Amino acid sequence: MSERKRRRGDPAAAGSSGKTKIRSDASSSPLLFKNRLKPDSIILATLQQLHAAEQSSSSTGKVPTLAELGLSSTCREVSDRDPAAVRITIEDSILAAARSILEGRGFSFSVPSRSSSNQIYVPELDRIVLRDKSSIRSFSSLSTVRKTTITVRLLALIHQLCTKNIHVTKRDLFYTDVKLFQDQTQSDAVLDDVSCMLGCTRSSLNVVASEKGVVVGRLIFTEQGDRIDCTKMGVGGKAIPPNVDHVGNMESDALFILLVEKDAAFMRLAEDRFYNRFPCIIVTAKGQPDVATRLFLKKMKTELRLPVLALVDSDPYGLKILSVYMCGSKNMSYDSSNLTTPDIKWLGIRPSDLDKYKIPEQCRLPMTDQDLKTGKDLLEEDFVKKSGGWVRELELMVQTKQKAEIQALSTFGFQYLTEVYLPLKLQEKDWI
Amino acid sequence: MSERKRRRGDPAAAGSSGKTKIRSDASSSPLLFKNRLKPDSIILATLQQLHAAEQSSSSTGKVPTLAELGLSSTCREVSDRDPAAVRITIEDSILAAARSILEGRGFSFSVPSRSSSNQIYVPELDRIVLRDKSSIRSFSSLSTVRKTTITVRLLALIHQLCTKNIHVTKRDLFYTDVKLFQDQTQSDAVLDDVSCMLGCTRSSLNVVASEKGVVVGRLIFTEQGDRIDCTKMGVGGKAIPPNVDHVGNMESDALFILLVEKDAAFMRLAEDRFYNRFPCIIVTAKGQPDVATRLFLKKMKTELRLPVLALVDSDPYGLKILSVYMCGSKNMSYDSSNLTTPDIKWLGIRPSDLDKYKIPEQCRLPMTDQDLKTGKDLLEEDFVKKSGGWVRELELMVQTKQKAEIQALSTFGFQYLTEVYLPLKLQEKDWI
Repeated sequence: MSERKRRRGDPAAAGSSGKTKIRSDASSSPLLFKNRLKPDSIILATLQQLHAAEQSSSSTGKVPTLAELGLSSTCREVSDRDPAAVRITIEDSILAAARSILEGRGFSFSVPSRSSSNQIYVPELDRIVLRDKSSIRSFSSLSTVRKTTITVRLLALIHQLCTKNIHVTKRDLFYTDVKLFQDQTQSDAVLDDVSCMLGCTRSSLNVVASEKGVVVGRLIFTEQGDRIDCTKMGVGGKAIPPNVDHVGNMESDALFILLVEKDAAFMRLAEDRFYNRFPCIIVTAKGQPDVATRLFLKKMKTELRLPVLALVDSDPYGLKILSVYMCGSKNMSYDSSNLTTPDIKWLGIRPSDLDKYKIPEQCRLPMTDQDLKTGKDLLEEDFVKKSGGWVRELELMVQTKQKAEIQALSTFGFQYLTEVYLPLKLQEKDWI
Repeated sequence: MSERKRRRGDPAAAGSSGKTKIRSDASSSPLLFKNRLKPDSIILATLQQLHAAEQSSSSTGKVPTLAELGLSSTCREVSDRDPAAVRITIEDSILAAARSILEGRGFSFSVPSRSSSNQIYVPELDRIVLRDKSSIRSFSSLSTVRKTTITVRLLALIHQLCTKNIHVTKRDLFYTDVKLFQDQTQSDAVLDDVSCMLGCTRSSLNVVASEKGVVVGRLIFTEQGDRIDCTKMGVGGKAIPPNVDHVGNMESDALFILLVEKDAAFMRLAEDRFYNRFPCIIVTAKGQPDVATRLFLKKMKTELRLPVLALVDSDPYGLKILSVYMCGSKNMSYDSSNLTTPDIKWLGIRPSDLDKYKIPEQCRLPMTDQDLKTGKDLLEEDFVKKSGGWVRELELMVQTKQKAEIQALSTFGFQYLTEVYLPLKLQEKDWI
């Protein structure tokens, strides 16, 4: 057993197995990689190049609009609007309805279809957008009177939220009129309709999702007037607020944003104050990305013009998470321009890392049938296909049928992630 | 419909239904309750009394010890130890093993039993503790050699963590030796054994759970040297750190701690800066309480000697959550003294509030069979039985077969919670 323990590079175990000699073969691979590390100044120079490229890049923050692509008549999307603008839009639509009633024509709304048949992937934008199909929701039709009533009720509630400028959850909205809405799926669905109909993002409507993400590192911002310095947030970090419009005045001397899939890795990076050694902002949604974290990432990337490097598990689920950050989820495709951060670089853990960094066999996990199916499905996704590197990595995963979590690196010592793996990755520009 | 809308006290709807007159019956109940509110200075005086009682109370922070109860020989519990003390304890146990081996007797550990048959509720402590049953885990026995090996391996790893003073998750521990541990349930179970065996809390072993909770309001503390002012944490609040031993120097001018079950209510309270009107600290674990939030609450309550008022859903699950904060969960009963905060006051939403505050029928939900069973089971729990008030509330819930979420209050307006319900509850000392 001492042989195996020593191979793991575990100092405690190595110390206790005095009888065996240290050999310099593959078993000491962790040390091997550590020895490849150059001084931090060299790694920092590499990061400065990456940073400079991002700052000068014309693509960052300046994605072509639908109009520039000649798609404005056939596609639609929503935009961030301030509460006053939302109020006016609502008032306009209600005035139009009143006028229509006075003219003896009853009233109706033209509601964009959000079905997948009305969605399209636009390669130039690298995300899904809604096509222009709409349907008429009339108060005088038996089949749509309920939905029309719910729509009017939500318009009134949102008007109230924007007047007071307070934020509520979808659950709060539901409870304002349980008898009408009956169950929350109905008010949620119409809320998305209203968002599309008004051309405003859901967060512009002051309806927010619950917060889940945390951020730590070289970022200062104001939140509802409070100045938040994320280098002084201990190891727990700052909770990302549910309403990103309360966030302003972002400042940073970071060279990049490190997007982390899971909170265990986040904790390691925060406790080791990784951002002090390599100036960066570390952010995680603790698994499946929520809307607040996606908006926050987008805002950081756009305002600070920083490159985003992603650290996720080497499994199809890790890639799925990246796809949500990059391309959005299908049921909110009307809002994809505000929620998505294209151009995220895949730093690790990549399938090719498993052999490259000699992750022991027993720390790799076999992929389940479901994993394999998801992996093969991902190979058909546009966001994967546009990059040869991503396709090769994913093919390797599906072919070797092996996956690994970020934490598999703990096999080489708890701080291997922060002290060897990530610095080496950065030094060698090993992102795709 | 205008009649119903008006009853909801929804300003937007009231304005649009000009034809009906406002009547002063039950339908205007939200206003009725609002009119009952006295000036804030009177409510604050009430809270100052509550606060003073807590500060002078001999019970706070001074629960009898097992020794004082004459139970130290028949019960056991663990305590918080610093990393140096944990290291010495581990070294002692390894030296004892070495001595035993040298004397030709092989080695074994005496491991406390954590089974429910070895657990007992101690009324004086108001929590579950472990009895003194132990079993011998011997390296020379075929049935225990594996577990003994895992125990030694974990002792070595924890020794390393305490030497470096870094914190890792259970998942990280598992990955250090997948071949030996085979699956994480095995390393997790032995970790709990080791915690009992060494008499140290799991967080003393520098093994932490992932963070989930957030805190906002009148609290200042240091976290790994950073000074955190929770009045300046915007609406998102500060993420509660996974390792409470990084937290120190707590200061507060709050009169109470408001423990909230869900993040939607937390968000409402934070956005409305409820803590500025009524000096308090607001904390939530976003559902089922995690270890980090429980430790943080305990630390606040003990160091600041503040009363804790709880705001949970009026359903059996809300009470279950309170029970975890107050009495601990069964599988960590050995650690109950460090994790539990007895003496939490149940502020709301209580079953009797549904009629008292005239929550409309359609905002109440019928209890499922499972709910009813859980409710009846809770009536048998000691932490409920010790309070006549709690028993009566729970009996009412089971009898009416109705439950309601905190957010049901949104039916009277989104800010009814912060502007009417909670102030009135505090004014009338309506906690039990």
